Amino acid sequence: MNKSAFIVADSPLSEVNVKRWRDGKLTDAKDKIAEETPIALIYNGVSHAVMLATPQDLEDFALGFSLSEGILQDKSELYDIEIVAQEQGIELRLDVATEAFVKLKERRRNLVGRTGCGLCGAESLEQALRLPSLECNKTDVMQANIHAPYEPALECFNRGASLETIKAASIQKAFHAIQAKQALQQATGATHACAWVHADGEIAMLREDVGRHNAMDKLIGALAKQTSKQLYENGFVLTSSRASVEMVQKVAVAGYHLLAAISAPTGLAVRIAEAYGVTLVGFLRAQQFVIYTQDNRIET
Amino acid sequence: MNKSAFIVADSPLSEVNVKRWRDGKLTDAKDKIAEETPIALIYNGVSHAVMLATPQDLEDFALGFSLSEGILQDKSELYDIEIVAQEQGIELRLDVATEAFVKLKERRRNLVGRTGCGLCGAESLEQALRLPSLECNKTDVMQANIHAPYEPALECFNRGASLETIKAASIQKAFHAIQAKQALQQATGATHACAWVHADGEIAMLREDVGRHNAMDKLIGALAKQTSKQLYENGFVLTSSRASVEMVQKVAVAGYHLLAAISAPTGLAVRIAEAYGVTLVGFLRAQQFVIYTQDNRIET
Repeated sequence: MNKSAFIVADSPLSEVNVKRWRDGKLTDAKDKIAEETPIALIYNGVSHAVMLATPQDLEDFALGFSLSEGILQDKSELYDIEIVAQEQGIELRLDVATEAFVKLKERRRNLVGRTGCGLCGAESLEQALRLPSLECNKTDVMQANIHAPYEPALECFNRGASLETIKAASIQKAFHAIQAKQALQQATGATHACAWVHADGEIAMLREDVGRHNAMDKLIGALAKQTSKQLYENGFVLTSSRASVEMVQKVAVAGYHLLAAISAPTGLAVRIAEAYGVTLVGFLRAQQFVIYTQDNRIET
Repeated sequence: MNKSAFIVADSPLSEVNVKRWRDGKLTDAKDKIAEETPIALIYNGVSHAVMLATPQDLEDFALGFSLSEGILQDKSELYDIEIVAQEQGIELRLDVATEAFVKLKERRRNLVGRTGCGLCGAESLEQALRLPSLECNKTDVMQANIHAPYEPALECFNRGASLETIKAASIQKAFHAIQAKQALQQATGATHACAWVHADGEIAMLREDVGRHNAMDKLIGALAKQTSKQLYENGFVLTSSRASVEMVQKVAVAGYHLLAAISAPTGLAVRIAEAYGVTLVGFLRAQQFVIYTQDNRIET
């Protein structure tokens, strides 16, 4: 095995030899496991971030990450992507508009040093919560500007998705359909999925990744690439994972209005969903779910 | 609600009003949800990273993060921790040994810019996989130095934990016991746990967090604080989550030899566990589990 094969997988899943212990007996077996590879995002030659992600749908990931992190304001600012496998991971070399790159350089100038997970690298509390502005800068991601009482400002980050209500039956239909569409999860049991669901409950698009925020970025990128707006004019985002604050942030920045999570939300995720007018559904199960915010958008 | 109460929770869980949809009917209900707060790690006055974490056991978190990220080599290098709630999150102000701080500054000098989750902020592939050195620098976290064939170098990062075998029955016993000890998870359904388990299967210590890597850091910090080595001389780490590469890295850096995960591992996590001599158990269920690496350490 060379260095490259050790770190960089060329497939989203691999098969390994394992020992299976069951009721006191040990047997040899084969197991399919999901791959996780360091993926570097490089903008106009400058390395910006490395994420551990499933090496699949990387062009969607590059575009979605750039949009949801506010590096690009529109897909038209992304001219080209080159995917280059290196010894220590995969490089996504993005060629982006000069304006976006200058903004990114300015943002980086204010920051020095190695930083944390969880918040995509904020290194001080002031940088921590990047949210769409409540002052209607539409898709501009900036420092959270949070005032009480929180007046939902839906029009601020509406990228075209309509505000029509969604039927509870559609959420249920998507819940029952998503598992069969999670190919990587079915093989490995290790990956999350994020899906765009039409208003009628039909799953229109789904992306998988070992990281839930990567799955969300891949979905956001895949949706942004659609030339027809119809695909995401009326519908919602469904995730197989929990609704952490990052997931709600990405949905809000991308301009979607309803996030349904199969697992639980966090407290901050609920407050941020409320402040930004995102309907947050959690604990989605057969025949039930919990609505945490903006319940007026759910039609029973 | 002021800014502070919006972002900073003063409890690991809170209660919110929700609407519960069940079989077509909507009812008002109350729901307990886990809190997630931006936590800044500040070393000798310099802000280093911000993590989204559950505001609980923060002193353990500060110490464990510092050790597992290789910022401190030993708990004796941490002189003091001050926990200060700010408007935008909670600051953990660490007073650390000059030598450790100088090393951290040097490391930071080589890095400029805002960086990614997933890898605790590496911004180029060269920085991505921080692993214990195979050349026996014991607890020094450095650039991965990976050569084939991988000769497990257990003595390199053995911080005192013994290499005795663990009985399959002990792993099963811990699996059956852990759920009842996950207080926050039982209330909220949103948190992970990492536990230190004695060789006999008794759970000795457990920490919870919305982030699995934070739960691991809290456990590592809590264990490092023990004055008696007995507690972790023979036993293993059990996590309620998946075994991603970060989880295996943290276990290896902390010097433990067996990680049992209730969910699946990733491919890279398996290869790194193999290279660093960590026994990796996954898909832990009643009466069964899968051994991915170093199966000689499991006694059936």
